[in-house]
Amino acid sequence: MADRPEGCFAHEIRVTWGDCDPAKIVYTGRIPWFALDAINAWWETHVGEGWYQFEIDRNLGTPFVHMSLDFRRPITPRHRLICHTWPEALGATSITFRVEAEQDGTLCFEGRFVCVFTVADAFTKTAPPQDIRDIVTPHLPQG
Amino acid sequence: MADRPEGCFAHEIRVTWGDCDPAKIVYTGRIPWFALDAINAWWETHVGEGWYQFEIDRNLGTPFVHMSLDFRRPITPRHRLICHTWPEALGATSITFRVEAEQDGTLCFEGRFVCVFTVADAFTKTAPPQDIRDIVTPHLPQG
Amino acid sequence: MADRPEGCFAHEIRVTWGDCDPAKIVYTGRIPWFALDAINAWWETHVGEGWYQFEIDRNLGTPFVHMSLDFRRPITPRHRLICHTWPEALGATSITFRVEAEQDGTLCFEGRFVCVFTVADAFTKTAPPQDIRDIVTPHLPQG
Amino acid sequence: MADRPEGCFAHEIRVTWGDCDPAKIVYTGRIPWFALDAINAWWETHVGEGWYQFEIDRNLGTPFVHMSLDFRRPITPRHRLICHTWPEALGATSITFRVEAEQDGTLCFEGRFVCVFTVADAFTKTAPPQDIRDIVTPHLPQG
Repeated sequence: MADRPEGCFAHEIRVTWGDCDPAKIVYTGRIPWFALDAINAWWETHVGEGWYQFEIDRNLGTPFVHMSLDFRRPITPRHRLICHTWPEALGATSITFRVEAEQDGTLCFEGRFVCVFTVADAFTKTAPPQDIRDIVTPHLPQG
Repeated sequence: MADRPEGCFAHEIRVTWGDCDPAKIVYTGRIPWFALDAINAWWETHVGEGWYQFEIDRNLGTPFVHMSLDFRRPITPRHRLICHTWPEALGATSITFRVEAEQDGTLCFEGRFVCVFTVADAFTKTAPPQDIRDIVTPHLPQG
Repeated sequence: MADRPEGCFAHEIRVTWGDCDPAKIVYTGRIPWFALDAINAWWETHVGEGWYQFEIDRNLGTPFVHMSLDFRRPITPRHRLICHTWPEALGATSITFRVEAEQDGTLCFEGRFVCVFTVADAFTKTAPPQDIRDIVTPHLPQG
Repeated sequence: MADRPEGCFAHEIRVTWGDCDPAKIVYTGRIPWFALDAINAWWETHVGEGWYQFEIDRNLGTPFVHMSLDFRRPITPRHRLICHTWPEALGATSITFRVEAEQDGTLCFEGRFVCVFTVADAFTKTAPPQDIRDIVTPHLPQG
């Protein structure tokens, strides 16, 4: 796996009481949700549009076809959760994101997420628009 | 990957409007939550206790250390989601679950989930209690 | 407030570990979600369609304009949550639902929910379709 | 109802795709969750502790006994949701919060939320600690 690029995008999450289960740590079911928030924030920050604008304004979907996560340390509301997020690969019709999430400098979880680009209303694969390709490419580890 | 055992446990989920996003399909962030509900229901059905009773009544935790999911088809509220769920492996201090979820006979997602057994209040690894080992073992593919 | 009609619709919810917060009871933020699930299940059971089918198949929306809830007892995964649910009033363009939710015979929360009927894609108020009016009316306390 | 105090606390929420339902607006079930996030943020900002720290570090609970919300306008990811949040009343063992949430200068929902103070592990009512009373009082409309 490629290392995290230096200075890559960081999305901050305010973890709360309601995210936690009776073990006093964030419920596992919430964690992929956090990662998705970070990926959507990556798009919003770099393209100026997130999944909502992609779908409604561009008829562009990016549904997930795969995710895998490793949980390293419990997450609590004691610290903000910093989600380091970057695109790892851009294929002909797909994109892979990585997320490494830390609290107080310690890795809590890391994950890999693969999305395909689709014509949203037809739900068929498509190549990503050129402007998106141009924005993503310099952020790729080998970019 | 081992095939799904015949007649394995099936947990039924009533998918609703509120689970869906503007693409009119279940939001990806909800899907791991569904899988976890199925795994917890496996415990409730086979042991008579779920994660809540494990933690509160037995001081036994089963935190997740890994999950991976492949998303095959969109999920909608048109059909119940049937989550076929079984333990794939039982280690010295860990257990692996598989979930294959179908709607109307078509595979929607499949996933693998690894949990470790812990002394809940100490958050340290432990071997699973013997009664749990005895209940899980016959459900293993090679059991 | 009108009393709960005898034999009114009951929607059963399987409360889980992930619904609970570190106080070992269901997080308050989850409870309106449960009530909405019960109301949607009322529609599915009585009309054969829920919010998803209303919107997609009929272009009919029923957005909420008000909800109020009183929380009487904590909810836990120890028992199923039985949500007694009924329409209390049907206006020219609105409907009021009541939900009384019990665990083990004890009232946990009660709420009132007001929705308006809309032309979904125009987001304008409308009268409910006659078939829905005919289905709802006999279930009203004064019906 | 008392008017919103000038310059009262505002909690900003980044509304996302995953918060929305197929009507392309935030699902009603998510909205009380947003309001609770705003109230918890009020505590974090003014006391330096939220519900998590109250419960774990002080054995202090503030469970909700009532909430009521009026939904004025749909919420979308097009704008941040600004949740104006203030304590409206402080009783012997209870506190009432108000939330008025706006997008792009337009009121989207408003709500009133009543919590009681409890000894968390005993789940019995109690008076709020004096430091909390001292912090809350000047923020009351009549303070």
